Amino acid sequence: MEMKEVKAFGAQSAEAPLNQLNINRRAVTPQDVAIEILYCGICHSDLHYARNEWSDVMPTVYPCVPGHEIVGRVTEVGSAVTKFKAGDLVGVGCLVDSDQSCPDCQEGFEQFCPNMVLTYGSADKHTGGVTYGGYSESIVVDEKFVLRVPENIDPAGVAPLLCAGITTYSPMKHWNVGPGKKVGIVGLGGLGHMGVKFAKALGAHVVVFTTSPSKVEDAKRLGADEVVISKNAEEMQKHFGSFDFILDCVSAQHDINAYIMLLKRDGNLTLVGAPEKPLPVAAFGLIFGRKSLSGSPIGGIAETQEMLDFCAEHNITADIELIGVDGVNEAYERLLKSDIKYRFVIDMATLKS
Amino acid sequence: MEMKEVKAFGAQSAEAPLNQLNINRRAVTPQDVAIEILYCGICHSDLHYARNEWSDVMPTVYPCVPGHEIVGRVTEVGSAVTKFKAGDLVGVGCLVDSDQSCPDCQEGFEQFCPNMVLTYGSADKHTGGVTYGGYSESIVVDEKFVLRVPENIDPAGVAPLLCAGITTYSPMKHWNVGPGKKVGIVGLGGLGHMGVKFAKALGAHVVVFTTSPSKVEDAKRLGADEVVISKNAEEMQKHFGSFDFILDCVSAQHDINAYIMLLKRDGNLTLVGAPEKPLPVAAFGLIFGRKSLSGSPIGGIAETQEMLDFCAEHNITADIELIGVDGVNEAYERLLKSDIKYRFVIDMATLKS
Repeated sequence: MEMKEVKAFGAQSAEAPLNQLNINRRAVTPQDVAIEILYCGICHSDLHYARNEWSDVMPTVYPCVPGHEIVGRVTEVGSAVTKFKAGDLVGVGCLVDSDQSCPDCQEGFEQFCPNMVLTYGSADKHTGGVTYGGYSESIVVDEKFVLRVPENIDPAGVAPLLCAGITTYSPMKHWNVGPGKKVGIVGLGGLGHMGVKFAKALGAHVVVFTTSPSKVEDAKRLGADEVVISKNAEEMQKHFGSFDFILDCVSAQHDINAYIMLLKRDGNLTLVGAPEKPLPVAAFGLIFGRKSLSGSPIGGIAETQEMLDFCAEHNITADIELIGVDGVNEAYERLLKSDIKYRFVIDMATLKS
Repeated sequence: MEMKEVKAFGAQSAEAPLNQLNINRRAVTPQDVAIEILYCGICHSDLHYARNEWSDVMPTVYPCVPGHEIVGRVTEVGSAVTKFKAGDLVGVGCLVDSDQSCPDCQEGFEQFCPNMVLTYGSADKHTGGVTYGGYSESIVVDEKFVLRVPENIDPAGVAPLLCAGITTYSPMKHWNVGPGKKVGIVGLGGLGHMGVKFAKALGAHVVVFTTSPSKVEDAKRLGADEVVISKNAEEMQKHFGSFDFILDCVSAQHDINAYIMLLKRDGNLTLVGAPEKPLPVAAFGLIFGRKSLSGSPIGGIAETQEMLDFCAEHNITADIELIGVDGVNEAYERLLKSDIKYRFVIDMATLKS
């Protein structure tokens, strides 16, 4: 298979800082779209992957190139491509392929396909190696996994929508967030701040739960109707049994029973943050009120496009800090301290210089 | 208020065995139905209550009279009663009153009413004491909380339907158990054996999970299409990602993550058994597949009537061991050892002799 060497930014080992390196991208096949990458968001998963912290389930193959919040311009399309042409502004999220034949794919749920191909770290049937992500000057992707990016919103702020955005939008649509619903967002970070924007734009009454009094003002600026300091038991008690839906965006260990108690009958709490250790759940909290606790990953391709179009209509992007590739290693350190409002995005033009 | 002394069977303290005693029942008010109790099932809650094991949330007031699986004949009705007449076969479950005005009551969810009155152990506005349950020769109940019992099924086997029956029927209806669905029942006891019967009658493919190879034959007799010994990891793995719904009827500590893994996309596991300590739940198990974990108590009055009518149509009753009141204390000891297939029912005629 014909290959092209391109510049990228990645890690040579779990201990090494990320650095510039060269990788091979395939030449476009008839179904492919070649994309010049303009912006790539930094997701916490990138850090886990670069440092091989998921070795149990997904051992990292080095060199590795993270990045699954990609926005760029089409430079070339394969002969069979119908949806895109050179010059189009496009996005790529966490998936670059799936089997297209399983029941999940047939129903538009590529995110549950047993044979899905992740944007980085999955076996790459074209190159025989592993897939390389968006910390790179370009990428080649099957058109079915390429999203149209509306031109009317800031493309750097769009990048995080491809992971943090769809991860928060999808469960809200699934659990019918909308006007007349009271919605809680637990944790105001990369995921949480998107959750607030979506819940508000969908017409819900939005309550943010945070441990940091310093985040109250910002939560309100983002769209929260109320902010609760979760360490204050009295404030929490005021909301007992009142929520239709709570989106829990916290990856650290925390007491979810305190939030389950705040749900009304048939209310749902969905986890999108994934604490490392199992969370203790009190059965009685679920039984009285017939409440449910669930989880949700990203969305399917069609839903991701729907989310991008919703963002264009409601003028929603992520709040970002734009950095050059040279700033990636420092950004990782700041990510570990939650020292970011609210998502780092790499200006990939800095890779070429 | 006019009272009548009647015979009952209850406990004078947490440490004392249950014994015969006298209690007061109110004379019928215009809305009331007086019932001669024929049969009363023994629920594990009765034992917790008699021994004050729920002192944290519901301290037992002594003397106490348990029993909320009641079947009897109407002996007298109040002047405003329209649904019942003397001689009718009727049932009373876990509730004898609610406020009738809250949103839950308005929607027929009396089981979630903040002011519901439990059949035993709640404040009794009529007598000023606490409510006394069905281990008694008679009871007086507002007609709104009295159920019609079909005459074509064994009334002793009907008694456990009023708690164990509705507790398993209600979540199956809520989560759309029916033809084409694969349903798991975890634990084959008082609740689980009803779960098997309902899932089968609703048209599902039923798989029973049990730790006891000795229960395989019985599970099949009750209607299971398959039986899995849950300690066998290989057998469990065969069912990975295949269940629409799992009803977990186990009150002992157990690993629910092993069952969450068996759910398919959007599958639900509902807890009806309530282990004392919080259950550790792995977030990733819920996230991949967008699965949900929930709980469910009893049903509302209308749904309980629907369940009884469903049982009449499908010839469903509980598998019971009929005992006299003298056998209650021994039955409690056997209950602690799960030495019962599958529910004790007291023949209340034995109280009078």
